[in-house]
Amino acid sequence: MYYHDKQLQYPVRVEKPDPLFARQLQQAIGGVEGEIRVCMQYFFQAWGARGPTNKYRDLLLNTATEEIGHIEMLATAVALNLENAPLSAQEEGAADKVVGAVMGGEGSRQTIEGMLQRHVLSTGLAAFPGNAEGVPFDCSHIYASGNLAADMYCNVAAETTGRTLAVRLFNSTSDPGMRDMLHFMIARDTMHQQQWLAVIEEMGGAAALPIPNSFDQRQEHQRFSYFMMGTGRNGDPLPEGRFSSGPSIDGRGEFYAGHFEPLGEEPMLGAARPLSGAQAEQINPTGAKPT
Amino acid sequence: MYYHDKQLQYPVRVEKPDPLFARQLQQAIGGVEGEIRVCMQYFFQAWGARGPTNKYRDLLLNTATEEIGHIEMLATAVALNLENAPLSAQEEGAADKVVGAVMGGEGSRQTIEGMLQRHVLSTGLAAFPGNAEGVPFDCSHIYASGNLAADMYCNVAAETTGRTLAVRLFNSTSDPGMRDMLHFMIARDTMHQQQWLAVIEEMGGAAALPIPNSFDQRQEHQRFSYFMMGTGRNGDPLPEGRFSSGPSIDGRGEFYAGHFEPLGEEPMLGAARPLSGAQAEQINPTGAKPT
Amino acid sequence: MYYHDKQLQYPVRVEKPDPLFARQLQQAIGGVEGEIRVCMQYFFQAWGARGPTNKYRDLLLNTATEEIGHIEMLATAVALNLENAPLSAQEEGAADKVVGAVMGGEGSRQTIEGMLQRHVLSTGLAAFPGNAEGVPFDCSHIYASGNLAADMYCNVAAETTGRTLAVRLFNSTSDPGMRDMLHFMIARDTMHQQQWLAVIEEMGGAAALPIPNSFDQRQEHQRFSYFMMGTGRNGDPLPEGRFSSGPSIDGRGEFYAGHFEPLGEEPMLGAARPLSGAQAEQINPTGAKPT
Amino acid sequence: MYYHDKQLQYPVRVEKPDPLFARQLQQAIGGVEGEIRVCMQYFFQAWGARGPTNKYRDLLLNTATEEIGHIEMLATAVALNLENAPLSAQEEGAADKVVGAVMGGEGSRQTIEGMLQRHVLSTGLAAFPGNAEGVPFDCSHIYASGNLAADMYCNVAAETTGRTLAVRLFNSTSDPGMRDMLHFMIARDTMHQQQWLAVIEEMGGAAALPIPNSFDQRQEHQRFSYFMMGTGRNGDPLPEGRFSSGPSIDGRGEFYAGHFEPLGEEPMLGAARPLSGAQAEQINPTGAKPT
Amino acid sequence: MYYHDKQLQYPVRVEKPDPLFARQLQQAIGGVEGEIRVCMQYFFQAWGARGPTNKYRDLLLNTATEEIGHIEMLATAVALNLENAPLSAQEEGAADKVVGAVMGGEGSRQTIEGMLQRHVLSTGLAAFPGNAEGVPFDCSHIYASGNLAADMYCNVAAETTGRTLAVRLFNSTSDPGMRDMLHFMIARDTMHQQQWLAVIEEMGGAAALPIPNSFDQRQEHQRFSYFMMGTGRNGDPLPEGRFSSGPSIDGRGEFYAGHFEPLGEEPMLGAARPLSGAQAEQINPTGAKPT
Amino acid sequence: MYYHDKQLQYPVRVEKPDPLFARQLQQAIGGVEGEIRVCMQYFFQAWGARGPTNKYRDLLLNTATEEIGHIEMLATAVALNLENAPLSAQEEGAADKVVGAVMGGEGSRQTIEGMLQRHVLSTGLAAFPGNAEGVPFDCSHIYASGNLAADMYCNVAAETTGRTLAVRLFNSTSDPGMRDMLHFMIARDTMHQQQWLAVIEEMGGAAALPIPNSFDQRQEHQRFSYFMMGTGRNGDPLPEGRFSSGPSIDGRGEFYAGHFEPLGEEPMLGAARPLSGAQAEQINPTGAKPT
Repeated sequence: MYYHDKQLQYPVRVEKPDPLFARQLQQAIGGVEGEIRVCMQYFFQAWGARGPTNKYRDLLLNTATEEIGHIEMLATAVALNLENAPLSAQEEGAADKVVGAVMGGEGSRQTIEGMLQRHVLSTGLAAFPGNAEGVPFDCSHIYASGNLAADMYCNVAAETTGRTLAVRLFNSTSDPGMRDMLHFMIARDTMHQQQWLAVIEEMGGAAALPIPNSFDQRQEHQRFSYFMMGTGRNGDPLPEGRFSSGPSIDGRGEFYAGHFEPLGEEPMLGAARPLSGAQAEQINPTGAKPT
Repeated sequence: MYYHDKQLQYPVRVEKPDPLFARQLQQAIGGVEGEIRVCMQYFFQAWGARGPTNKYRDLLLNTATEEIGHIEMLATAVALNLENAPLSAQEEGAADKVVGAVMGGEGSRQTIEGMLQRHVLSTGLAAFPGNAEGVPFDCSHIYASGNLAADMYCNVAAETTGRTLAVRLFNSTSDPGMRDMLHFMIARDTMHQQQWLAVIEEMGGAAALPIPNSFDQRQEHQRFSYFMMGTGRNGDPLPEGRFSSGPSIDGRGEFYAGHFEPLGEEPMLGAARPLSGAQAEQINPTGAKPT
Repeated sequence: MYYHDKQLQYPVRVEKPDPLFARQLQQAIGGVEGEIRVCMQYFFQAWGARGPTNKYRDLLLNTATEEIGHIEMLATAVALNLENAPLSAQEEGAADKVVGAVMGGEGSRQTIEGMLQRHVLSTGLAAFPGNAEGVPFDCSHIYASGNLAADMYCNVAAETTGRTLAVRLFNSTSDPGMRDMLHFMIARDTMHQQQWLAVIEEMGGAAALPIPNSFDQRQEHQRFSYFMMGTGRNGDPLPEGRFSSGPSIDGRGEFYAGHFEPLGEEPMLGAARPLSGAQAEQINPTGAKPT
Repeated sequence: MYYHDKQLQYPVRVEKPDPLFARQLQQAIGGVEGEIRVCMQYFFQAWGARGPTNKYRDLLLNTATEEIGHIEMLATAVALNLENAPLSAQEEGAADKVVGAVMGGEGSRQTIEGMLQRHVLSTGLAAFPGNAEGVPFDCSHIYASGNLAADMYCNVAAETTGRTLAVRLFNSTSDPGMRDMLHFMIARDTMHQQQWLAVIEEMGGAAALPIPNSFDQRQEHQRFSYFMMGTGRNGDPLPEGRFSSGPSIDGRGEFYAGHFEPLGEEPMLGAARPLSGAQAEQINPTGAKPT
Repeated sequence: MYYHDKQLQYPVRVEKPDPLFARQLQQAIGGVEGEIRVCMQYFFQAWGARGPTNKYRDLLLNTATEEIGHIEMLATAVALNLENAPLSAQEEGAADKVVGAVMGGEGSRQTIEGMLQRHVLSTGLAAFPGNAEGVPFDCSHIYASGNLAADMYCNVAAETTGRTLAVRLFNSTSDPGMRDMLHFMIARDTMHQQQWLAVIEEMGGAAALPIPNSFDQRQEHQRFSYFMMGTGRNGDPLPEGRFSSGPSIDGRGEFYAGHFEPLGEEPMLGAARPLSGAQAEQINPTGAKPT
Repeated sequence: MYYHDKQLQYPVRVEKPDPLFARQLQQAIGGVEGEIRVCMQYFFQAWGARGPTNKYRDLLLNTATEEIGHIEMLATAVALNLENAPLSAQEEGAADKVVGAVMGGEGSRQTIEGMLQRHVLSTGLAAFPGNAEGVPFDCSHIYASGNLAADMYCNVAAETTGRTLAVRLFNSTSDPGMRDMLHFMIARDTMHQQQWLAVIEEMGGAAALPIPNSFDQRQEHQRFSYFMMGTGRNGDPLPEGRFSSGPSIDGRGEFYAGHFEPLGEEPMLGAARPLSGAQAEQINPTGAKPT
């Protein structure tokens, strides 16, 4: 079960509230590269982790729990960036603001154009679990496959896109408070990349491939297991690299490359059945209707 | 641009049509671990690939183009597995079938319970771009981040969950035709795992971490870059492993672990603004309404 | 504005409640071929109809209003089909039912397997605005383009898939009450197909093509306006038919067909920018990191 | 920030694993009446709570944190109910099982028809953040409006549908372990209904209506503020009750009821503009095309 | 069944068309706080209402039917606000407009930045059933639980967030026509809050709690039914209020509060099964692969 | 199976990169009127096409394959339009740009307000499979009904909304490269409208109605098959036109029109069942709770 502390994991300060940056921060909350995703992904991986030992269950719980705190920090940052956002033509000074500064913090009418309208209309100047375009987070992005090695690669993938996003947010703002918060978050993404790669190494690294390693590879069509398939039309040169020749990454085969010709037939599904709602012509060639 | 050949990439045969297996195959078409996802993911990565050379653009195009053929094979397999699926109480023999066999292929009323109803009602006994529960594929799952190394980890993740799915489908059927098709597809997933890991190796492997490597790490809060954060409440022992001590994976730091105490304050957002739609009590403590 | 009458547009009777048929009927409520879709589509087309006269606004309102009554009939039919659906092992007689009949109406445990679980868990044995797999209706399916001719083709399309669905539902049940309701609904779908095609005829039919007809066709690349583009790889024979030779449907050109070769270049996007979150190698060929 | 304890909030035991009940439990995890929803709803309300004091922020945090533990319990229950679920025709004894018992726990082929296929194909016999039909949870259901009184009614609504669901799940199973877990959860839902109603009472109850109470009611069209609008077509009798006569709930008006006639005009949007993509007839009555 | 009148329920006028306000109005059409939601929610509650009498069915139908008229008014308002929205650089005067006024009505290039692009590209300057960010309405938001008391709280919740939204829209515009329309709509939301609360009072109010009241409370774990559960980590003071001591709202218990310690065990799911697609290490501790 | 050529189908050039136009182009990629939709729609129709001959399978494959090339062209156009989009306050010259031009191409801060934020944050200045508001494409829009005539009308509908969108994009830009690309695409949409209408003509045109034509029309309630149903409340005049009198389009009936009165009863669902989670009052009129 879970506990909370009223303090934030790391300080969140905003010097110049910027409603457009509030919008951008939403990507780190409810975007597919964001913190709700990793938080719930690690939780569901932990709660479903099977194995003779509970080895990685607790590691996943620690990091999932850490991530709740990141969502909290970002939600706080969104609210602080919306402090002075424009609500109405009636607010004191709004008229001036329209004429006024183009840049954030002072809530001009121009600013309202770049804002998420739901920050005004739906949340009362606070965060919501959606991305920078206002699209709500959809939990189909929680990858928890029941295969721990696959899950770890999903986690590395999540942390690489997550850190890329955090770096882009860092580059996008000049607010010292926001940059301080992000330099903490970028560091945590660095660690999480390392951490899941460390688990992959513990699980055997390349030697544990292919994933899942519990399937007897003799049952796969091994002629195609290390073959770089070329689909160029005209005998174009094939791409060459580490993946086209030499030993495979798992050390169990040799890469090779080539153009590929179809091995299957042209499929022919045959006539539709009388009660299937097709047109009469699909049921028999004369198109005579059933009686 | 693109070209087609009317023949299938690899033969697709179904000996005993099984409408429940048709449902399961949908996961490999329109599930998040499925082929539409990898096909479009590789295409969008290719079409947006930036770099001084076009090095990986073409590799991505080859594999994306290969994957269209996989969707085609699976869609054909779904249609073939639905050949004799039950449509109606009126069809000849349907009454017998109700009393008849429990297992697939003969289209009993019992079978209709496990089928996707949309296979009867919406597609006329054919495949659609949704998963095994009938949920349509949603293109937010196409990861193409603009960072090639992050993309490659996303691709490995996709192929590990994809091969796990293919293995589960293989285990779930005993139809020789379907097993032959899947043993080809499992082999291709093996290759694709290898292939994207080979690109990661070419891009420097662990040495190219953290991703993105174009951000100056001196700007991150490096005290936390290799720290395993413990969130256990009661001084529980921390998880230990490759990730809690010793050199980091990227060779740039040393892992360490510890319990963590909040560094931030309790946030205090202050009063709501008069025109923000809040309750009067949120605007001032007396709850007096604005006039 | 709108008014209601407590009576149904057409009688709805169920003789033998069948929870699996309740599930199938959901497709006609909340499926993409269903009644919520056409109802809202006709309303939004009416409410946004522009033109010198209000000619089609009222026609659309009449049919949209009719469709609310169809949703109501179907929702009633779902509730009636769920009358005796299984809720619990504790209900009187439930134990017997498990051993009992396979077919609907008597609520065996087997039946619960084919039901929508949300009919028990979320609605208390009533309809909801989702399809036969439980996927909620999503209003992106409301096509209202601002071009009345395009809208009319969207409406014909909706009514052809709608009537196909209604026919499949008719074929799927033997309940006399349900068949009576559906024979009314199928007739209405017949009329609605006719009705929208009649509007297309009024708007000029083929002569009003291409849609939109307010764009000066001299601005399009007319060499390709009546060309059947072949993408077969190997000089395969091209498909032949009404669409490959002879006068075009709009009478403004001549169909012709041929294989197509690319007219464009291989795209080259060039290097990524320093602050875009790409890998260093994408920014410059040496992979030197920015400082 | 947040902390975890490896123990569950309340014991979770399953005596007879039942994969269909695993499916039903998903509704309490990822359904709109489920625990992810309340957990995240309370968190986002807390993180965005504005007011002169932090009065309800901490209450919301306590309950949100409690709810993570409920998701964890349910996810554990799903995994335990899937212990023996059917994976394959090859598993030892599977053939017997097909002939075998209809009821859960022994994993017959019949059982596989009622299961969520994703429990086998996507999660390796574990929970995921979706509902009983396999539809992923969508975070648009997190209501956090910035108005604390509105939020409290949203919370009561969530807990009433939540307890209704928990009662249905209780009625649906006879497993003693599952019933014990649910009798705890039903009690918690009882408390949470009470708790949010208690906050509403503290905020003034009916006297604080209408919500938001920071809008000057003199600006609304008060003739219609306590009017039960009848839309019956034919002078049908109007519904009568507490809502049609007598003092209003907020004590500021008197309910009355009546049939309603339109006050507005028939709207006439006028001609479409030349570059808007409409048909020529929409742009001018002759249908002459622009040149 | 349903009928229509070509006139609007209440006048809709726009003096100064403002495409950004058109965007904001979309939230009241297709947002989760909007009119499609309440309209369909009341319809589905009515169509599924069970009870010995049809007492609330007709009340729900009256209000649902009223709400169609509200969607119509809002859709008309959106179209009128888009009258002069910018379509193209070629339109007469467009160049001037770019240099011209910042505020709405005159369609400057700046205005196009804040518009919904779909208003130009997809609808031809008309409304669509989506929210202010362009996200389509999703019918999972139609709450109709089969429990009338739960439904009524869902309705109050919908009308409190709905009136909050209407107030924010009112505050956001200075157009007299739009303010007149909204002052009618705000009044109707006031009534609908009152109306559903009046039904709750008729159903017993607090005395009818907990919902559902058809479940024997002796079956719940009553020790926890009125317990405010504290999850603070460090013996922090618990939140205090109406909810932490004194009689419960339903009058059946006494509130009390306290910190909570886990009652359950650490879960241990055990080894994965051989055919479940897990890694070999999850199946047995040595990681030996199956043969 | 499928093949690729590295060259584009038609040249894609951008003279003045415009990040707002990049946003608008997304509608043609991932909007419901866009190219992913038609591409996948034609593929799924082809892969599921049943009939005694494979007549239309290959035609569909040719056009589906052509459409991949259109997505590729548009994705390339998006990337080129994002060339100089604003990333950061730190980029050289950014400060000037803020002061600088309002119009596109030079990446001012003002421009960032109209951009899709995900173009900066998620894709690194490249396309993604979503629409102009950032909403991801959802594959429920792939219509493939199993009835070829219904499918053809769906295809005409898709190409009419598609060409309308392309015309609006053409009107929205003045970039010569973009206009050249679009004049090719508009021509292709012209052809595709013609092509699918030609197939409808081959299948019998109006004579093949109603769709599906394999259902015996004597089973429908023919009194209502050609009846224009009026729902006006007050004896308003009915809409008149081709659809209200004269021979029907299919030549099998005569149109007529009239007001309609309900033929059904007021539905009465009766009492709720004891274990269904309803309120006690719904179960019996006294509201006595079950014991």
